[in-house]
Amino acid sequence: MSVTNSTASRRKFVRGGMALGGGLLALPSLPATTPAGDAAANETLRTIHSLRSIHGDFSTKPVSDADLKTVLEASVRAANASNTQSYAIVVSRDPDKIQKLTGYRAGCLLLYCSDYTRMIDTANHLGYEYHADNMEAFITSSTNTILAAQTAVIAARSLSIDSLLTNGIHRGDVERIWTILDLPQKSCFPLIALLLGYPNSEPAHKRGRLKSTGIVHYERYQRLRKNELDEIVRQYDDKTLQICTIDDWEKRGHKHFLDWFYKEWARAGAKATTSEGQMLRRLKKSGYVDAQNA
Amino acid sequence: MSVTNSTASRRKFVRGGMALGGGLLALPSLPATTPAGDAAANETLRTIHSLRSIHGDFSTKPVSDADLKTVLEASVRAANASNTQSYAIVVSRDPDKIQKLTGYRAGCLLLYCSDYTRMIDTANHLGYEYHADNMEAFITSSTNTILAAQTAVIAARSLSIDSLLTNGIHRGDVERIWTILDLPQKSCFPLIALLLGYPNSEPAHKRGRLKSTGIVHYERYQRLRKNELDEIVRQYDDKTLQICTIDDWEKRGHKHFLDWFYKEWARAGAKATTSEGQMLRRLKKSGYVDAQNA
Repeated sequence: MSVTNSTASRRKFVRGGMALGGGLLALPSLPATTPAGDAAANETLRTIHSLRSIHGDFSTKPVSDADLKTVLEASVRAANASNTQSYAIVVSRDPDKIQKLTGYRAGCLLLYCSDYTRMIDTANHLGYEYHADNMEAFITSSTNTILAAQTAVIAARSLSIDSLLTNGIHRGDVERIWTILDLPQKSCFPLIALLLGYPNSEPAHKRGRLKSTGIVHYERYQRLRKNELDEIVRQYDDKTLQICTIDDWEKRGHKHFLDWFYKEWARAGAKATTSEGQMLRRLKKSGYVDAQNA
Repeated sequence: MSVTNSTASRRKFVRGGMALGGGLLALPSLPATTPAGDAAANETLRTIHSLRSIHGDFSTKPVSDADLKTVLEASVRAANASNTQSYAIVVSRDPDKIQKLTGYRAGCLLLYCSDYTRMIDTANHLGYEYHADNMEAFITSSTNTILAAQTAVIAARSLSIDSLLTNGIHRGDVERIWTILDLPQKSCFPLIALLLGYPNSEPAHKRGRLKSTGIVHYERYQRLRKNELDEIVRQYDDKTLQICTIDDWEKRGHKHFLDWFYKEWARAGAKATTSEGQMLRRLKKSGYVDAQNA
């Protein structure tokens, strides 16, 4: 099972730096087939409910240039603050390069980066200054960027092109991304990699979701009570819901899926961060942390 | 014209703190009608190409509970890292509250927050610790959050419900968001407000986009050359493309739209940030900046 294998690979990758090439688990599988259900009242909703992630098991069938163009043109239709389009989409068709960047083998990558370089260069060209050197700029551009990325995912799926959104780019030494793709050192930050392609086989799993308590809050944020926390634990354990990301936690000696999750999967998250990590360091280097460049 | 009016309002709001109620410009208008074009080969693509932002001119017609449920159930179908769903969606039906939060009047708000509270509370409930106290956690959860937000936007549009994505929440004193909605002080950060509703009238403008040079890069990042920068300036000036966010920059004494943009609209961005702003301060308070809580 890909998730089982990829757990070890991910750990190896995280700890071993550039130990790329394993089947890294990044984002979970989504429904293998269109589940429809009451909600799927139109084609767009059916497309959304048919989204699933392909964890590297892409066939060699290429995404056509025409389809890639359609996906890119749909992607930029997402709303964005003041129409600044403060993002860059770096496309690669090179499987070796894609593997070095993401840990996955695929024939088509769209790397979505928060990016103010075009705006800064255009400002300078016209004789102005423009700075994007603070957290507000980073959050605004990140939002613009991910809105565009998800639009691409849905557009691709409507063309029967599957995808994987992976933050595998952020594992190992992130500096490789700047090196491999000549990203600007400042004002540009890669956020998520979108791999596009056709699966070798239909994914075995469809992944469920928490849908209400703990996710959706009405009028004010509601902290979960004891019985609601029990219900969350129960939902993860309910294999018919498929919210869990592995099926064999009992065999591994755990009472609940979340025991496995917190004890084994999320070990890094169990410890308080006591020093500056590479993401903050890289954000500073990119100039997105206030007053780093003053 | 809404953009013109809202420029002044926005400035007032930004500078005056809680001076809410003006028609704030947040995200630009998108095509008023389905433009189709060659790319729009299926209903999902037509839905995407029909996206447009309604800048507060929503009618009193409510979004039905059934449609809201459909939108929320579609929203959570977005991919997310390790199926952690590290977000919270706070729904409000209270126009006064929505105006205080976003600066816009609307009947339905979905506030998308990066949020690890449920995961942390569930961990504690089971006797574990779980921390989300670093920039990697923030970037991962922000990505999860915005992927879900854009899925909601597209799902809503497929039901003929229009929207506005606005970062108006981040203008003025952001602490009001925590106060009004009882957001957890730690591990929760509101990223974008999604207003849903039906427009009073069809928007007059459809907003264009830069689609290729400066946005899409092949195999490596390409800094723009002088002639390409000229072309960017030209595209913003081309009113048939409607990439510009105002139409009357000549009347205002500017040669190019981007002269207006850099000189008048983006004044804050023209100055280097020399001290810590409220977003970084709030991220620290929320525990998302590494080693702030060590």
